[in-house]
Amino acid sequence: MRFATYSADGNTFFGAITDEGAIALNDAFPDHASLYEVIAAGQFDALAAAAQARTVTHTDVTFDMVMPDVRRILCVGVNFPDRNAEYKDGSAQPKYMSLFPRFASGFTGHGRPLIRPPENHTLDYEGEVAIVIGKSGRRIAAEDAYDHIAALTLCNEGTIRDWVRHAKFNVTQGKNWDRSGAIGPWLVPFTDATQLDDARIQTRVNGELRQDDTLDRMMFPIREEIAYISTFMTLQPGDVIVTGTPTGAGARFDPPKYLVPGDVVEVSVDGIGTLSNTIEDEVV
Amino acid sequence: MRFATYSADGNTFFGAITDEGAIALNDAFPDHASLYEVIAAGQFDALAAAAQARTVTHTDVTFDMVMPDVRRILCVGVNFPDRNAEYKDGSAQPKYMSLFPRFASGFTGHGRPLIRPPENHTLDYEGEVAIVIGKSGRRIAAEDAYDHIAALTLCNEGTIRDWVRHAKFNVTQGKNWDRSGAIGPWLVPFTDATQLDDARIQTRVNGELRQDDTLDRMMFPIREEIAYISTFMTLQPGDVIVTGTPTGAGARFDPPKYLVPGDVVEVSVDGIGTLSNTIEDEVV
Repeated sequence: MRFATYSADGNTFFGAITDEGAIALNDAFPDHASLYEVIAAGQFDALAAAAQARTVTHTDVTFDMVMPDVRRILCVGVNFPDRNAEYKDGSAQPKYMSLFPRFASGFTGHGRPLIRPPENHTLDYEGEVAIVIGKSGRRIAAEDAYDHIAALTLCNEGTIRDWVRHAKFNVTQGKNWDRSGAIGPWLVPFTDATQLDDARIQTRVNGELRQDDTLDRMMFPIREEIAYISTFMTLQPGDVIVTGTPTGAGARFDPPKYLVPGDVVEVSVDGIGTLSNTIEDEVV
Repeated sequence: MRFATYSADGNTFFGAITDEGAIALNDAFPDHASLYEVIAAGQFDALAAAAQARTVTHTDVTFDMVMPDVRRILCVGVNFPDRNAEYKDGSAQPKYMSLFPRFASGFTGHGRPLIRPPENHTLDYEGEVAIVIGKSGRRIAAEDAYDHIAALTLCNEGTIRDWVRHAKFNVTQGKNWDRSGAIGPWLVPFTDATQLDDARIQTRVNGELRQDDTLDRMMFPIREEIAYISTFMTLQPGDVIVTGTPTGAGARFDPPKYLVPGDVVEVSVDGIGTLSNTIEDEVV
């Protein structure tokens, strides 16, 4: 069972995605206006139960950002060993992970275009696994961390590369361009550690393999991400952690291979799916 | 007229704050559950109209974070000339401002304690003016920027200083400890450019003046902050920009003067008010 936010017949719904079509679940949760609100209320498990009592409502859907109203998205930077080396600044493996928030407005949904703005054309891809918290916690021990994950999804953590280095500190302005990235297509329930521990992530641009790595090579494994982040802030249901991208983003080629209109970027993980997006120039 | 979120009689309200007490406005906005939701719906001006038709409902109130459910808070770093020099890294004035998001969970309200965690005791203050967006916009020209501000408030952008430097990039984990900062006490409508252009901000610790500067000395004035941020993201009603702190934070003294339990920090701007917070050790 997979869960998503989608548009159909001119309206927005949230529901379950099956091979036959989408099962709208809005009427099953009258107190919650969105998939995010259901999860934030700690009711992720109720989605599957509600879907089983219903039939397909929409066979022609367009995916939206998986939780367009999600409140907190934290991204982990530079989390694969070759990625640290890519920076060529002679730094050893860092002691602590790099973290930065992104606003939901920076992401679109599966099948929709990433937007290249007129101000700068260094739009780049970063394929990543994102986790959705299902149970709140503070100072979560690494060995308990997986108990706090409700679901998995995919992220193209699209970046305007030149703007990442505008400021003395912080990557904020390169990471928060409207609809410069994508999260989706859907949420897959997290029920088994092997869904993460054995996962291989691949990113293709126009079919060419650009990123290809396994999550077990992360410098800061997902269990440690949850433990570290929850040291300073209480993780809440619905929070999203974007867990880090392998080497092979376009900026690391010489010359760089930035995305241009018409390109197709696909981020894939077996058992989660494929997040596919085209590139379009913004119409200003 | 001032607007706030507050607790009274065991419940949470939003409303207008007068010298005689608080006027709860929840029943005037049945479609909106919070002050933030009213403003996000573009109805900031309706708050004053609603208050004029009502009388004081609560005379004994405790302030909460001014908009506990605010979705986006962007902070401007290193924005006063002496502050850049404080870093002693020989850098010239930067070409672009430094920006970092903070989550609402990192802030408490006026009169409530900032929390010093057991993991690290380098809790520091930063007094700042915060603006609340009232009108959406993208690529806003600096000369039009003030038209997009609905209200002003104060921020103690409390920081766990050691954790700001955990990572190679980004200050995220030093800036997002639960209830390590405060925003409030209230929102003051922004009606006249002089409210910002002529503003003097002062921060006192136990009555001792630590920060004292005028907003006209900002390296990146508030008009430019709005113009720059709205280049990459559409500013929306309810968004908060924390505009930058003067020199004089505790970390810059030798030895540093970090906050300890029992300290009282006051951030003051004439025409906005005083945001006062004590310090407490977290009970784990």
